[in-house]
Amino acid sequence: MNENCVFCSIVKGDIPSFKIYEDELVLAFLDINPFSRAHALVVPKKHSAGLLDTDDDTLAAVVARVKKVAARIRETVKCDGFNILQNNGAAAGQTVGHLHFHIVPRYGSGPVEFVSGSGDMQELAKLAEEIRFGG
Amino acid sequence: MNENCVFCSIVKGDIPSFKIYEDELVLAFLDINPFSRAHALVVPKKHSAGLLDTDDDTLAAVVARVKKVAARIRETVKCDGFNILQNNGAAAGQTVGHLHFHIVPRYGSGPVEFVSGSGDMQELAKLAEEIRFGG
Repeated sequence: MNENCVFCSIVKGDIPSFKIYEDELVLAFLDINPFSRAHALVVPKKHSAGLLDTDDDTLAAVVARVKKVAARIRETVKCDGFNILQNNGAAAGQTVGHLHFHIVPRYGSGPVEFVSGSGDMQELAKLAEEIRFGG
Repeated sequence: MNENCVFCSIVKGDIPSFKIYEDELVLAFLDINPFSRAHALVVPKKHSAGLLDTDDDTLAAVVARVKKVAARIRETVKCDGFNILQNNGAAAGQTVGHLHFHIVPRYGSGPVEFVSGSGDMQELAKLAEEIRFGG
């Protein structure tokens, strides 16, 4: 737990999120400024800044969850593809200094861009409910 | 080995590449149409199409190598950050149907864009030699 970390606060429950998956190791929730519909983030509960600061066992566990959550999102929203994106450092566009993997669904022949939109909170709540699944 | 797969042919050695790392499980080489200087790809030697087609053990092993290769690239080219990108499906911009992780170094406050450039082959060869490291 890092006191000044937004994702640690989300993991702790001090900041609400549109949760779609949770187990003992990770939390997954919808991005509120989505690149596309059902853009989700998977974060380890234990704080680490980025890829190079995370031990291999944790990484392995997180990536297995990324796969599981991506499969669930694809099944639910019927996207045609998806990107996995993980940013390290401000120079790479990392805005929260807690390791996170983006799952960005893609639909049809739309542009493959990583540009934040402004999420509709009611729509996100409904979508999270549709996607949410057990551990 | 998939007969029609470019990355399988690179792994087999039938198509040359600017190798920077190789072990029994993965091969890493520079992208010849880089998004940025020292843009590299890490691919498992065993063919699988994408994230959802790859077993968790293989994924764990590949991601551990992605971390290792990214650390080496950062150390060598002194980038300020880097993105890890893994595309699934044509709709997500996947152009080769063999699982691969992009490592995209970022420098200073340059744009975080994923736009292919045209690599200078002599420069890539020199860069690969600088980055190349043991298993």
